[in-house]
Amino acid sequence: MPPSTDNPRTATQQEHLDAVSKLLAKQRLVEDLVQRQGDHDSRRPGIVESMVHRQNLVELQKRLDGLHPADVAYILEGLPLEDRLVVWGLVHSERDGEILLEVSDAVRDTLLADMDSAEIVAAAQNLDADEIADLAPDLPQDVVQDIIEAQDVHERAQLQSALSYPEGSVGALMDFDVVSIREDVTCEVALRYLRRFDELPGQTDALFVVDRDDHLRGILPLKRLLVSDPEVEVASLLDRNVVSFSPDSDAEEAAKAFERYDLVSAPVVSADGRVIARLTVDAVLDFVRESQETQVLAKAGLREEEDLFSSVWLSAKNRGPWLALNLGTAFFASRVVGAFEGSIEKLAALAALMPIVAGIGGNSGNQTSALIVRALALDQVSAANARRLLAKELGISILNGAIWGSVLGVVAWLLYANVALGGVMALAMMLNLVVAALAGLFIPLAMERFGRDPAIGSSVFLTFVTDSMGFFIFLGLATIFLL
Amino acid sequence: MPPSTDNPRTATQQEHLDAVSKLLAKQRLVEDLVQRQGDHDSRRPGIVESMVHRQNLVELQKRLDGLHPADVAYILEGLPLEDRLVVWGLVHSERDGEILLEVSDAVRDTLLADMDSAEIVAAAQNLDADEIADLAPDLPQDVVQDIIEAQDVHERAQLQSALSYPEGSVGALMDFDVVSIREDVTCEVALRYLRRFDELPGQTDALFVVDRDDHLRGILPLKRLLVSDPEVEVASLLDRNVVSFSPDSDAEEAAKAFERYDLVSAPVVSADGRVIARLTVDAVLDFVRESQETQVLAKAGLREEEDLFSSVWLSAKNRGPWLALNLGTAFFASRVVGAFEGSIEKLAALAALMPIVAGIGGNSGNQTSALIVRALALDQVSAANARRLLAKELGISILNGAIWGSVLGVVAWLLYANVALGGVMALAMMLNLVVAALAGLFIPLAMERFGRDPAIGSSVFLTFVTDSMGFFIFLGLATIFLL
Repeated sequence: MPPSTDNPRTATQQEHLDAVSKLLAKQRLVEDLVQRQGDHDSRRPGIVESMVHRQNLVELQKRLDGLHPADVAYILEGLPLEDRLVVWGLVHSERDGEILLEVSDAVRDTLLADMDSAEIVAAAQNLDADEIADLAPDLPQDVVQDIIEAQDVHERAQLQSALSYPEGSVGALMDFDVVSIREDVTCEVALRYLRRFDELPGQTDALFVVDRDDHLRGILPLKRLLVSDPEVEVASLLDRNVVSFSPDSDAEEAAKAFERYDLVSAPVVSADGRVIARLTVDAVLDFVRESQETQVLAKAGLREEEDLFSSVWLSAKNRGPWLALNLGTAFFASRVVGAFEGSIEKLAALAALMPIVAGIGGNSGNQTSALIVRALALDQVSAANARRLLAKELGISILNGAIWGSVLGVVAWLLYANVALGGVMALAMMLNLVVAALAGLFIPLAMERFGRDPAIGSSVFLTFVTDSMGFFIFLGLATIFLL
Repeated sequence: MPPSTDNPRTATQQEHLDAVSKLLAKQRLVEDLVQRQGDHDSRRPGIVESMVHRQNLVELQKRLDGLHPADVAYILEGLPLEDRLVVWGLVHSERDGEILLEVSDAVRDTLLADMDSAEIVAAAQNLDADEIADLAPDLPQDVVQDIIEAQDVHERAQLQSALSYPEGSVGALMDFDVVSIREDVTCEVALRYLRRFDELPGQTDALFVVDRDDHLRGILPLKRLLVSDPEVEVASLLDRNVVSFSPDSDAEEAAKAFERYDLVSAPVVSADGRVIARLTVDAVLDFVRESQETQVLAKAGLREEEDLFSSVWLSAKNRGPWLALNLGTAFFASRVVGAFEGSIEKLAALAALMPIVAGIGGNSGNQTSALIVRALALDQVSAANARRLLAKELGISILNGAIWGSVLGVVAWLLYANVALGGVMALAMMLNLVVAALAGLFIPLAMERFGRDPAIGSSVFLTFVTDSMGFFIFLGLATIFLL
């Protein structure tokens, strides 16, 4: 069964989007016709056009119905606002919830803006507590309240529990589809118990084995249950060496544990050891991908993800603070240069050469900082090896400084026929690379110490240091030795 | 069972590393003693010291034996080369293979350098074909040949198949632990067949249902098999709408499908529809994390990951080409400034202000490019919406340019008491932000078109454009209007 377009799951998403776009374009054509006829013929559209119109919509709707929610979400993301809302209107309302879960935050906002409170509450009815909790941050407070009140007692408790954990904790990723059994039963009994389900929850690779009070005793992997003699007791099969999490655990740490131990699902236990929920690999995979994307965007100074089709004004607001911050640091560096204007007037070559010293410092410092940020993420930096790291980075910067400083020194000398200028250039390069190594090492460490994410903010500070110091060192040395 | 240090799986890795480091330090102390005694006492170490020495090693080895391969790998990563090799020597040789799989490429090289060919071939004997294929790129060609020859016929065919797919393809991630059944049997028969296994392969969440010739007919999820009446035929339960991959499929696309459809395992089929292998979520999760890390490092210009403790010389070689490339672009920008040295001599303020224009252009262009790179990765950029994106990005750059250009223009005017200078500054800012928007949009698109990864190389080109053009626009306008 090689991928084919007959199979809606294996047709590429791009193809779905193209097909829907085509149907929408056809639709608009018909609407235009209807509109024009209406203008100079009569107030009501012709019967033929109206039928074609309806047929088109039916075809579009049929296509959407056959698609996985994730694929509908992809189509919604790829359409401009107007078309997006046409498609959103055609989605059957019982699928609204699962599709809202799949779209990005920015697009979700545009869809929610198109729904009234009652529709949102109805959509939430088809979702599990953990899924509602994922949507909640994007909903108005009173709608969340309505949703909570619409739940039955049991679900309400779960929902309130799920809502109480902050983003980035295991509690925010866990779900409540736990299948647990006692350890004093036989496999036969366990299997009979399972047959009472219509279908086990997705990502169930193990049963959680608990005692009378729901305390975790271990897990029984399905792959072991399936190959076991039905007469054997669960107690003799279960795995007691279990990776479990607290709902307060750091989601990133949990993700690392899933990677290390190749987990599919793991129990989440309360402080007193009771099983309250589970964490599954699909939530972990989504979390890893999402935090990766957020990080890439945050590094470029985008505070939130942008809908590709969002307004110029909203986008500018999203990007403004970063530009303002960088403007501040650039202004400071500019004042450093300003302090040497006298020297530059006498030797304009300095103005041409100074960006090289600053720029290479920034590149080199970013290399150091990328490695340190990675080592921090992998918990590989300790007091014991910090000194070794420092020695290594300083060594590299001196070596690189000697090599590239000499190259640039010779180039500057030949270019301006000025040996002293070449010497200053070489020396400044070397010194700024040492500054860059120190900054690349200590800025991420300091950010980590102060509880900020070093992966995101390090580069602004780093560029600030390497630019300002690069200008200062080069122009300072030049002022001393050349003028 | 809340996390506790009694449980080796839940003790944090940092604790393992600390414990091992302490044992190693104690070891060194004893060795020192033995050494000193040996110096001025006799040729042979004292019996007491020798016993303590042995006891220490036994304790260290016992500790390592109790750890998961991933945790041993973590310890090896966190130790300087000398200590690392002591620990590596203590690992039982039958575990060598699985630990080699877990360490990073850079550390793997140091461990392999410590093993002779026979040891490497022996380590490979304990691995599956797909795992050996993962190690192969780091092994000498003749050792790979020895390993292939040491396999039995069946394994050899699998190994050769696994070795034939390039990095980044599904073929490089798949494994051969397929459990398949026929569709014309009852669940009872299927269950009896499964009981003949000692344990099903990890990550088995579904049986692959095939016909007489191994052609994929569908999958039977275990969670459905478990809840079904044993008398029912497999054919009536199986899921025919299966996500499957070809070994040539792009691994990134496969990872996206795993995320979208919450898969745990999926069949890999040959061109003629036969099941040849499977792809599992643990391999996908590792792939996602690894490509993310590679990308972060590559963005900073690190060609390969660096062992934290690798030599200065190796590291400098790894980082050199990036610095050289950036030096080239910085030199070009410097020549642009050089062309205006006459203007700078007359008005040194230009030298102080020009880095601001160039720098903010770079920041702003990077924001655009980050969004475009993300949209490209999500297949959201098409010919149809490219024009809309262009209009939006130009709009934002003009708006931001008007705002920040005015701010900077006023600041420059006040600082240098020169209205015309303020005007030139404002105009140059605005123009360079427009240039940045165009570059941020078209550079990633062009890289994608030419088959390069836009996530990695875009920033060098972008900075090149925004720096050179920033200097050119600002100094050019100044030369025209101010001098």
